[in-house]
Amino acid sequence: MSSSDLENLIDLMARLPGLGPRSARRAVLHLIRKRALLLTPLSDAMQRVAETARECLNCGNVGTTDICDICADDARATGELCVVEDVADLWAMERAGVFKGRYHVLGGTLSALDGVGPEDLSIPRLIDRVTTESISEVILALNATVDGQTTAHYIADQLEHQVTLSSLAQGVPIGGELDYLDEGTISAALKARKQI
Amino acid sequence: MSSSDLENLIDLMARLPGLGPRSARRAVLHLIRKRALLLTPLSDAMQRVAETARECLNCGNVGTTDICDICADDARATGELCVVEDVADLWAMERAGVFKGRYHVLGGTLSALDGVGPEDLSIPRLIDRVTTESISEVILALNATVDGQTTAHYIADQLEHQVTLSSLAQGVPIGGELDYLDEGTISAALKARKQI
Repeated sequence: MSSSDLENLIDLMARLPGLGPRSARRAVLHLIRKRALLLTPLSDAMQRVAETARECLNCGNVGTTDICDICADDARATGELCVVEDVADLWAMERAGVFKGRYHVLGGTLSALDGVGPEDLSIPRLIDRVTTESISEVILALNATVDGQTTAHYIADQLEHQVTLSSLAQGVPIGGELDYLDEGTISAALKARKQI
Repeated sequence: MSSSDLENLIDLMARLPGLGPRSARRAVLHLIRKRALLLTPLSDAMQRVAETARECLNCGNVGTTDICDICADDARATGELCVVEDVADLWAMERAGVFKGRYHVLGGTLSALDGVGPEDLSIPRLIDRVTTESISEVILALNATVDGQTTAHYIADQLEHQVTLSSLAQGVPIGGELDYLDEGTISAALKARKQI
């Protein structure tokens, strides 16, 4: 269908999440048309990230330094520690721009089915941080899935009496329409109703 | 949200067709996790393609040589010339693996609305090839859209009496269910019905 360099690039692009063989071909043709504006800068940016990207030794965030910008920022030592499943969740929290403390990335959730235990996640490191970093509150911002909630319960058990524990509120999302929400969300929103 | 190298890579990825900001972030995290297996090879493959990719001077196919593999292959000088709108269509024809002749990529379709005339496409070059390459049949494999069919009519007018002209058959796609097909397709399939 085309020369081997092109086929190789298409095969690699098709392995990205969100792209299949057809969209990978479209993307490669687009890249070739925008060679100077997109293809070369993208190749360079990937090479730089391949050389410099690393996990923060403290919280597990992805950045280009051993200690990430958030952990290095003294203004964020508020005593609040937000526990998230993975880096994408940390970035989502940061986009909301409302949390001023630091993070702890677990790297997944406990899962009996997949054989993921506490040692496979950074839970021991979390318990360690709570005692050494004078943390006053741990906010469990885990996904509202079965595995996420199991993990939240396990962490809450481990940290009981040491620190204030909280979790994100559950309810109707902003802009959400009741007709499109599942029963569990409506039920949670009703139970947590607030007087106006 | 993260350091500037990462943000830059995410911004560039988000400009690929099929990816938005959210899927670009997911793709970049995936790339960082698979640094040796995917990120570095992908960066290298892009660089190689940026250096070597070019349009075939003869047919407009994208390859890594001035004359593409198909135009360079004497076995494909069958006298049949398949006219397609763009390179993605050429690749789709090649995947079908049933056409043994050569191609001509127009680079778009005629469009009065967008001000695309015959000179903006490689139609003059097509007419030139028909006379110089001893072409016996021109197969118009253009999309079954208004612009595609307008372009096919224009080309047919230009090449009338010089060469046999044909176009792809229209009908029910393989595996297609009548209930999901538009009226135009069903009508075309009925008119072109074949005796069993």
